[in-house]
Amino acid sequence: MKNKRIGQRTVKMQNKPTIISAASVVGPKEGEGPLKDYFDLVLTDDLYGEKSWELAESKMVETAMEKAVKKAGKKLTDVNYMFGGDLINQLLPASFAARELSIPFFGIYGACSTMAEGMCLSAMIVDGGFADLSLSGTSSHYCTAERQFRFPLELGNQKPMTSQWTVTGAGSVLIAPNGDGPKIKYVTVGKVIDKGIDDGNNMGAAMAPAAIDTIYSYFNDTNDDPNSFDIIATGDLGKLGKQITEDLLKDRGIDISKVYTDCGLEMFNLEEQDVHCGGSGCGCSATVFAGYIYDKLAKKEFNKVMLVSTGALLSPTSTLQKQTIPCVAHAVVIVNEE
Amino acid sequence: MKNKRIGQRTVKMQNKPTIISAASVVGPKEGEGPLKDYFDLVLTDDLYGEKSWELAESKMVETAMEKAVKKAGKKLTDVNYMFGGDLINQLLPASFAARELSIPFFGIYGACSTMAEGMCLSAMIVDGGFADLSLSGTSSHYCTAERQFRFPLELGNQKPMTSQWTVTGAGSVLIAPNGDGPKIKYVTVGKVIDKGIDDGNNMGAAMAPAAIDTIYSYFNDTNDDPNSFDIIATGDLGKLGKQITEDLLKDRGIDISKVYTDCGLEMFNLEEQDVHCGGSGCGCSATVFAGYIYDKLAKKEFNKVMLVSTGALLSPTSTLQKQTIPCVAHAVVIVNEE
Repeated sequence: MKNKRIGQRTVKMQNKPTIISAASVVGPKEGEGPLKDYFDLVLTDDLYGEKSWELAESKMVETAMEKAVKKAGKKLTDVNYMFGGDLINQLLPASFAARELSIPFFGIYGACSTMAEGMCLSAMIVDGGFADLSLSGTSSHYCTAERQFRFPLELGNQKPMTSQWTVTGAGSVLIAPNGDGPKIKYVTVGKVIDKGIDDGNNMGAAMAPAAIDTIYSYFNDTNDDPNSFDIIATGDLGKLGKQITEDLLKDRGIDISKVYTDCGLEMFNLEEQDVHCGGSGCGCSATVFAGYIYDKLAKKEFNKVMLVSTGALLSPTSTLQKQTIPCVAHAVVIVNEE
Repeated sequence: MKNKRIGQRTVKMQNKPTIISAASVVGPKEGEGPLKDYFDLVLTDDLYGEKSWELAESKMVETAMEKAVKKAGKKLTDVNYMFGGDLINQLLPASFAARELSIPFFGIYGACSTMAEGMCLSAMIVDGGFADLSLSGTSSHYCTAERQFRFPLELGNQKPMTSQWTVTGAGSVLIAPNGDGPKIKYVTVGKVIDKGIDDGNNMGAAMAPAAIDTIYSYFNDTNDDPNSFDIIATGDLGKLGKQITEDLLKDRGIDISKVYTDCGLEMFNLEEQDVHCGGSGCGCSATVFAGYIYDKLAKKEFNKVMLVSTGALLSPTSTLQKQTIPCVAHAVVIVNEE
């Protein structure tokens, strides 16, 4: 067995696990944003025909999973594993979707880092020879997240300008040991970093240090050149967190400014759509990747991409107990060349 | 790359990932049960010196992780990945522990199946050459679970006889590509099964079909003989769920009755300790495995074991929305021979 570790934190795939398809479903507001043409399905009703927003979110992730499998010309029964999770307590949306899809299920939780977490695990499981097809995906819904983490929607509460807007959306990718599509080459898994921010309305600042730690570790391990990437996309630090990440990485000798974006900024027209610092939620980096970035990779308009999904691991209970916000970020490097 | 799949649902490890150590921490009540001599630490105070039960649970899982690393003569900085999760919203205990331990962190959620879920993933990651050391573990705490899922403890609520008692405990295992200790040989990952039970006080009946599906799949894939096992341990179906599992597997031609136990029955003296159908919670199968079963494997008193941790993926929200209970069970087969 060949050891696949590079440096302290990064692993290199040996067998070119391939993202053979990707699919995305978004809500009405996201369907009015700049990426609207990249999504497979834009809902006109954020209840998606269900009785509750939680069941609607579950149906969204179920649909995104089914669409990815169908686009690859595969059947659900061909899929060996599903990695899924979301922001909602006990992963209600993912668990209920896994019941309907009847695929062996690994529940994962990384808050808004869940998309990259699932892709890291799927890539390793496929690269290691344990699966012929591994599905991963995640979702968020403005209405489920808002009432679980903040206030009842009926309250019409105002938000501070540092806050972000939870994306209503679900994205998924299907990974196979071979086939057409971009390959996952490197994975750098995040440590939980907490620099003492305790303001749940300033998640960008809370999560930036985790993104910095993971991105720095990748470049430190591989000596790769930031400018060899077409895009490095964090998700979802928003306007403020993106600036912090760019600045502090520059201080540590890594200049990603020419290729750097954040999924939270890509998703919305910030001022027109009144989303303050940008999009957030598991579904944000999931749909920006599965919609926009995957499309560019498939068309070879992008040939090298780093997705760094970032998550804030706070809970309403930890906030009430006056704890600070632990955060995590996982990086996946995806290439067309070779 | 060799494909490691056997039959429909099972994978076979090729490189003998080894459980080089295990550690367990339990609360006072668990320390009065029949397994009391097998645990590394029995707390005399279920707040463990912390200000809240949630922080106490976090410290318990942190301690179990540290102890497993120390018992193997390793350092925390040698560990490549930590798989952790628990019942508490947003995985507060595991996330906060991962922050203190500073090990790259995969958050996972499988309710009370989390111990086996982490072991499945750790085994595959190590077997695939991605880690030299992978730590996995989980925890539960009677007081955190009770107030999150049921009623305030101050209410002194009575429970129906079909209910189980959430174990206060944390267990962990450290897995390496080689070394002394039992080896993980097979992994069978669970599908989410829901037979329509909607009573959160009858989890054994809800989870039994998931356990049956996973255990049946393992034997169907491998043609293995149930009586070749020293022990097949589900966790945590309790008295009622265990009987259902045994009976329905027999109906499907698999008789495990001679070697079958349930971690929820092992943990407590059911009648004396007034725990109704037995123990439950992520910490139950975690500490029964990391304490009792691992000890027997290490001493070669057991040479072949199947751990089948079972989880009920309900949430207070899904219950209020009148949904039934989706359940999952993951199986890990551990051997001394070969």
